[in-house]
Amino acid sequence: MRVFDSHAALFTDYYQLTMAQGYLLSGKAETNAIFDYFFRENPFNNGYVVFAGLSDLLEVVEKLRFEDSEIEYIRSLGFREEFLQYLYNFRFLGTIHAMREGEIVFPLEPIVRVEGTLFETQLIETILLNLLNFQSLIATKASRIRFAAGNRKIIDVGLRRAQGLGGIQASKAAIIGGLDATSNLYAAFRYSLQLAGTQSHSWVQSFGDELASFRAYAEIYPENCTLLVDTYNVLRSGLPNALIVAKEMEERGQKLKAIRLDTGDLASLSKKARAILDAAKLHYVQIVVSNQLDEVLINSLLQQGAPIDAFGIGTRLLTAYNCPALQGVYKQSIIGYQPTLKYAESYAKTTLPGRKKVVRYYDTMGQFDSDGIMMETEDDVEIFYDPIHTEQQHHVGGLTARPLMQKVMEDGHIIGPLPSATESARYASQQFSALLGECKRFENPQRYKVGLSPSLMRLRTFLFEQMQKGSLAKK
Amino acid sequence: MRVFDSHAALFTDYYQLTMAQGYLLSGKAETNAIFDYFFRENPFNNGYVVFAGLSDLLEVVEKLRFEDSEIEYIRSLGFREEFLQYLYNFRFLGTIHAMREGEIVFPLEPIVRVEGTLFETQLIETILLNLLNFQSLIATKASRIRFAAGNRKIIDVGLRRAQGLGGIQASKAAIIGGLDATSNLYAAFRYSLQLAGTQSHSWVQSFGDELASFRAYAEIYPENCTLLVDTYNVLRSGLPNALIVAKEMEERGQKLKAIRLDTGDLASLSKKARAILDAAKLHYVQIVVSNQLDEVLINSLLQQGAPIDAFGIGTRLLTAYNCPALQGVYKQSIIGYQPTLKYAESYAKTTLPGRKKVVRYYDTMGQFDSDGIMMETEDDVEIFYDPIHTEQQHHVGGLTARPLMQKVMEDGHIIGPLPSATESARYASQQFSALLGECKRFENPQRYKVGLSPSLMRLRTFLFEQMQKGSLAKK
Repeated sequence: MRVFDSHAALFTDYYQLTMAQGYLLSGKAETNAIFDYFFRENPFNNGYVVFAGLSDLLEVVEKLRFEDSEIEYIRSLGFREEFLQYLYNFRFLGTIHAMREGEIVFPLEPIVRVEGTLFETQLIETILLNLLNFQSLIATKASRIRFAAGNRKIIDVGLRRAQGLGGIQASKAAIIGGLDATSNLYAAFRYSLQLAGTQSHSWVQSFGDELASFRAYAEIYPENCTLLVDTYNVLRSGLPNALIVAKEMEERGQKLKAIRLDTGDLASLSKKARAILDAAKLHYVQIVVSNQLDEVLINSLLQQGAPIDAFGIGTRLLTAYNCPALQGVYKQSIIGYQPTLKYAESYAKTTLPGRKKVVRYYDTMGQFDSDGIMMETEDDVEIFYDPIHTEQQHHVGGLTARPLMQKVMEDGHIIGPLPSATESARYASQQFSALLGECKRFENPQRYKVGLSPSLMRLRTFLFEQMQKGSLAKK
Repeated sequence: MRVFDSHAALFTDYYQLTMAQGYLLSGKAETNAIFDYFFRENPFNNGYVVFAGLSDLLEVVEKLRFEDSEIEYIRSLGFREEFLQYLYNFRFLGTIHAMREGEIVFPLEPIVRVEGTLFETQLIETILLNLLNFQSLIATKASRIRFAAGNRKIIDVGLRRAQGLGGIQASKAAIIGGLDATSNLYAAFRYSLQLAGTQSHSWVQSFGDELASFRAYAEIYPENCTLLVDTYNVLRSGLPNALIVAKEMEERGQKLKAIRLDTGDLASLSKKARAILDAAKLHYVQIVVSNQLDEVLINSLLQQGAPIDAFGIGTRLLTAYNCPALQGVYKQSIIGYQPTLKYAESYAKTTLPGRKKVVRYYDTMGQFDSDGIMMETEDDVEIFYDPIHTEQQHHVGGLTARPLMQKVMEDGHIIGPLPSATESARYASQQFSALLGECKRFENPQRYKVGLSPSLMRLRTFLFEQMQKGSLAKK
């Protein structure tokens, strides 16, 4: 369960090093600082995000070191010896609070809070954003696909079209978001994921004779035999040959597991295939489909009554095809024990200052009611303000409250065992079941209520006005 | 210059292993086979693709081994001892012909041809597709951005929004496609790329005082000082403070290099900033802009006359935002010394059989005229048929011909030194200059002529008709 074998410390932007050297030379390296990770908009016009990537991040951060070859390289870029010495001794010794991997999260909520020296908190920005943005994006896409597919089986088969080595973490995040299994051997090895796979057209092509290729496969894999029936012609060739093999397997006391369709009109072909299989008393043979599928096409196939048992999902899942980046950011909220915010001329774009926590409120049915962002020291908040339209409020009196952030790293050490991808998947699925249906739908999902506590509102407004005056006063 | 530190052999789809075991147990493992890598459509509605990823692929393939821990893992999945033994002794001993990294390539052309045993040629499919698809995609996107930006400087700053570890190869491919430098330290270390970077808003925030933060940066980096002027208000605060620092630097005999704008209306702000800098006799201070830029926005900014000297490009480049996957495929063209094709009911979708090469024809001005795909043994072809609309032909009599594929691996060994990313970038740039303008434009680029030789046409039609009869005869 490692992201990097080596050189993780170099997985950063060059400016992180120039700024780090600058902090050191300006006497600011050891200044206390807090950064928050959050995003401003859900991807895919979705109603929520499934948070993922935390375990990888914590493992990388705990082990972060600048090795000799890396120091050598940085020296060659012209950095100063004083800085290189600092890097040589560097370890991340900060403290991190975060939501759980698999948590259902919403725009503007601080999902991860990193506390430590300015040097160390700034230095991990790029790796943090890279790991959390991408894995949360893919887990969210997977969650949508799971929602569309109901309890049918879904397998990730996207590695060949994934964005390079990004495919490794993508396949893991897809499991966290709700897929059943992956074709990605590397990810399965590293993250203990369930594997699945069938056969390719080149298997059939290699035999020249479709029936011979099916027979060979069934003989070698009688327990787990899915036949790809569209190499030549599904109805004239692939399916009749699969029926022959299925009957031969029955004679040997074996059962053909499934057929797979990878081209053509999957709705009509799956219906015809089901009818032919059923007429041959092969009710148990399942139908697997693949070919540029996503949650929209799955919805459409199922609405058309396509009798599909399992989906193979590739490109559109592992690249998050219709929105391939989550624009999460990492912003300073405390500097030298003073709350700070990233000023913007529009109040709505101004970040949230100070050391904060997030509390989720549940209704009597155990469903999510709303979330509240408040100062870490606050308790018993009863009213929250909309962060954009601050004249809107919501009340949480009488609702059950659950704090969402926990300490996951202290003084550079990971706290407790990290959850496996499978455990995070289970957690995500449980949480998802408590999310209101209005927030799950694909078309115009309801905006989930996330509010700011009165204290946080006041602090934000105070700092905003102060900075506005400051910036207006300059000329 | 390594893609993987370890476990590269596991970077594959599970079904590659089940099929490999199947080939072994069916006595087909050592059968001779050839596979072609090609794609059917240009991404981004572009007129061409910049081929990239070959060096990484060859390095991975040459070193491909199944180590003990990998064999152990595969054993745990239930594979047979006979197969594990074969994997243990496995080395890729095949021969690869390919176009050069940085070559301008077109749909349907075999770009890479892999020859060897069925076992070895099939086993590398996933890693080949993953590396070549993604890097060619990003190199092509970068080429479009370079075309839009003319000779202005362009820097990749996308690592934080890249698709996980895919960012490493993305930054390299962006250089091959035409970018000048990257912020990605890891990629620069591994692939010897030029680095660049400025400072972030948190630098300014950390000082509380914008002017103090600018002064500190200018003192530490007098040779390479770009100031981010939009943390508070560009015109009232950032720019006036930058002017103060620029004048202080002049007094020390130094020059402020640039200011950077990362928010707001970049067209109007850059014009105002230019006017203010010029009025202060700071003509030499450059203007750098960033913020969700791509080739379309760059075109728009330049059409509006925005006086921009350099662009920072992030998310939209490194994720190829508007088309995040190249759908390249790897198809069998020879099995057991017999030409074969992947049959499709539509002739146009049928793949090209046999051992083939690609020749590029040049007009008297040295510009690309057209490409021809032919049998490896063919010479002096004068007429080519459109692969889809076969009634259309083009003639190449009298044109200068250049074969595009060369042998890059023989019996598992890389031939010759691999080009660096910078060398491939230079080659791509040279080739691009010989491509007709009609194929470069973003809106409705002309379809470049790629034809099939008469022999290849006849072979394809013969095999197609044979398979069509076979598949129709089944019922």
